[in-house]
Amino acid sequence: MDAALTIPRGVAQVDFQSSYWTGLLFIIALFVGGWQFGVFGLLGTVTATLTAYLLGITKDRVSMGLEGFNGTLIGVGLVLYLGADWMTVALVIGAAVAGSVLTSAMNTVLTPYNLPTFTAPFCVVTTVVVLGAPSFERLWSGAPDLPPPSAADPGTAMSWSDFWRGSFNGVGQVFFQDKWYVGLIFLAGLAVASRLVAAAAFVSSVIGLLVGWWFGAQAADLGAGLYGYNPVLTGIALTGTFVLLSRAGVVYAVIGAATAAGLTAGLTDLFDVLGGHTLTWPFVLVSWVFLAAVPLFSNLRRAP
Amino acid sequence: MDAALTIPRGVAQVDFQSSYWTGLLFIIALFVGGWQFGVFGLLGTVTATLTAYLLGITKDRVSMGLEGFNGTLIGVGLVLYLGADWMTVALVIGAAVAGSVLTSAMNTVLTPYNLPTFTAPFCVVTTVVVLGAPSFERLWSGAPDLPPPSAADPGTAMSWSDFWRGSFNGVGQVFFQDKWYVGLIFLAGLAVASRLVAAAAFVSSVIGLLVGWWFGAQAADLGAGLYGYNPVLTGIALTGTFVLLSRAGVVYAVIGAATAAGLTAGLTDLFDVLGGHTLTWPFVLVSWVFLAAVPLFSNLRRAP
Amino acid sequence: MDAALTIPRGVAQVDFQSSYWTGLLFIIALFVGGWQFGVFGLLGTVTATLTAYLLGITKDRVSMGLEGFNGTLIGVGLVLYLGADWMTVALVIGAAVAGSVLTSAMNTVLTPYNLPTFTAPFCVVTTVVVLGAPSFERLWSGAPDLPPPSAADPGTAMSWSDFWRGSFNGVGQVFFQDKWYVGLIFLAGLAVASRLVAAAAFVSSVIGLLVGWWFGAQAADLGAGLYGYNPVLTGIALTGTFVLLSRAGVVYAVIGAATAAGLTAGLTDLFDVLGGHTLTWPFVLVSWVFLAAVPLFSNLRRAP
Repeated sequence: MDAALTIPRGVAQVDFQSSYWTGLLFIIALFVGGWQFGVFGLLGTVTATLTAYLLGITKDRVSMGLEGFNGTLIGVGLVLYLGADWMTVALVIGAAVAGSVLTSAMNTVLTPYNLPTFTAPFCVVTTVVVLGAPSFERLWSGAPDLPPPSAADPGTAMSWSDFWRGSFNGVGQVFFQDKWYVGLIFLAGLAVASRLVAAAAFVSSVIGLLVGWWFGAQAADLGAGLYGYNPVLTGIALTGTFVLLSRAGVVYAVIGAATAAGLTAGLTDLFDVLGGHTLTWPFVLVSWVFLAAVPLFSNLRRAP
Repeated sequence: MDAALTIPRGVAQVDFQSSYWTGLLFIIALFVGGWQFGVFGLLGTVTATLTAYLLGITKDRVSMGLEGFNGTLIGVGLVLYLGADWMTVALVIGAAVAGSVLTSAMNTVLTPYNLPTFTAPFCVVTTVVVLGAPSFERLWSGAPDLPPPSAADPGTAMSWSDFWRGSFNGVGQVFFQDKWYVGLIFLAGLAVASRLVAAAAFVSSVIGLLVGWWFGAQAADLGAGLYGYNPVLTGIALTGTFVLLSRAGVVYAVIGAATAAGLTAGLTDLFDVLGGHTLTWPFVLVSWVFLAAVPLFSNLRRAP
Repeated sequence: MDAALTIPRGVAQVDFQSSYWTGLLFIIALFVGGWQFGVFGLLGTVTATLTAYLLGITKDRVSMGLEGFNGTLIGVGLVLYLGADWMTVALVIGAAVAGSVLTSAMNTVLTPYNLPTFTAPFCVVTTVVVLGAPSFERLWSGAPDLPPPSAADPGTAMSWSDFWRGSFNGVGQVFFQDKWYVGLIFLAGLAVASRLVAAAAFVSSVIGLLVGWWFGAQAADLGAGLYGYNPVLTGIALTGTFVLLSRAGVVYAVIGAATAAGLTAGLTDLFDVLGGHTLTWPFVLVSWVFLAAVPLFSNLRRAP
């Protein structure tokens, strides 16, 4: 029974939570978004957790869900980009195994700096698979065409609907979901774990959206939450999770969330050329930088 | 008063100098190059220095100008690539803040290896901003078109004018300046700090130009100093600044300067595809590699 | 005499062997593949070894051939991509010097993690040179056009000839060779050093080929060994060389070899956009990750 709880905990760890109630709500949100997201997300979580267990990772990391969450996102991401078929099942299993090995390799390098891997293993594995898939006829045959929302509806004038939907979608896009009520379920899942975390997530989503709007981003992309999900994760990470909560710490988190929104455009343009996707790269890079800098800033402190 | 001197010192640190007289000559050179380079360069320097001060960086790093120089280049670079308007003012402030955080993050990682950040924070921030700017209508609207000099004047036959102008321009291009007399003022600024440094800078600029010419680079690019500025910084770094001055050390610096010229072409082609700019990436990468290798070379020694 | 043996040892170290008999067979294989591969491979090996010696690297690293093998591959790679002329001679010398400095810089960073550089210095230097060469008229003039084998013969139906030739070619492609009998000589060279290594190399080549075939890769590329050479190096590295030989270790090596085959497609597509080549990047990245992860896996042990 306890072993079964590591799976929802793994899903919850995508947003740094270890409550299995949060994870259960997240799983429900994934199934509401589409059965394939739920099924492939669970497949990735189980494969990654099992791989870590078989290779002999310490028990507490496994049971806290820390070995599962990259697998969750690998499953959800690959079914979105490659379609729900048996080749994708095989690929998610292989990619989740690779993600588990990569998680341990990154921990070897990052632990001396007191940095977590975040979702970097997911980002690396998914980027590499998506870059390579077009070379493989049997992987690529079911892949859907996924233009950005602004391709069908260009323009930078943001409507009220873009604004409020985008704010919820920012929370859901962490898991590639673009329906506002799915984002709301994720937010409820966060509130079960901690109201502060839910508030940080929602405010960060709004900050990301407003930064994009101020610079003149495409309104349809803002409405889909594409400028919000990286600030959401960055905001949670820097608000009390890894940085001690303080007035200076909150200002630091706001700057971090805004930076993640700006970086989203840079990386999206880069991956557009290369044939990959933005994923949660902006969050990973900004949060690593903002956390690695803390020890040199005497006005901020790392959370224990 | 002493606080005010940190600003010219910050500008001087682009070329590893801490003399505020050098910095004052550099600021004059920027204004001779164009009012916008002087104004935005100072804006970036002030913002970066202030951010470091507010976050609690140690006093001696701030007063030596070590927290300012990446901000200088961010200001000069962004006004060149995005045009002089109020959105660029806001962006330079935001980018300089991000550059300060990145400087500290990089110091956390690099200090164990006894490596300085060099201008890497400027390179990272400017690259990311320039990649992302086209996605933002209000940032991109004022951006000028900037083809390389060889686009209007192709051909590999170098004239005498290309040669002597290029030699001075190599010194000025560290700050994106392409007029020979601006390069001369920068050289005068270096000579105020140390004649050895000025000599190393000029010789390295000539080495870079000659390597490019020998391999068959475009003459107009050579004349604009585009193959010289990375060797200039690499040459200063390896000649007595971070490597102990010796006969073997000078040979090592010459090889480093030539390598930086070669790498310039590789990175220029890469950024051409990706939509970024070469900046001082070749200098940063070559100098990191050449310095990190020194401890294993028993015939060379790091400067104290 | 002993000094002369460091050269064949350097060539043998491409495949992690220190027997000069293995190196001699490898050199023969290169000359059978084409005189230019033998000559430029030796030029690179000698230059790299000599540079390391002059800079004062410890004697045992030099005499084991560990300072030569990146030079070997730089020589063979550059003559393939740029053609056999005097500019390429000069470039191989310069690139091998840069590769030696890079090897030491990487050792400074990687030794604390107990990771070898593998062929990363060769990959970095060759990638940068190939990216930059088109900017230089005199370097690029002799460069041959090198489309992938599948360009002339598209289709994913693998013939028996593709299969058996591809299995041998996977061993030869480590050195850019695409004739099955050249691969066979390399295999003989490995068998001289150790039958286990030769078996690991051949089985890994077959694994890489089968992974590519299962995913639906182009048959002509499979037949040329393009999906095999990175698994070959990964398989040797993980089977007893750097990971203690055990049942779990062999499973780990098989997963590593399969991952290297998958990564080959991702990096090939990436370099296709950027104008570079896949080289042995997949092996380097996969082997670093799989080795860095070992200390956290209680069911695996590093070889002493």
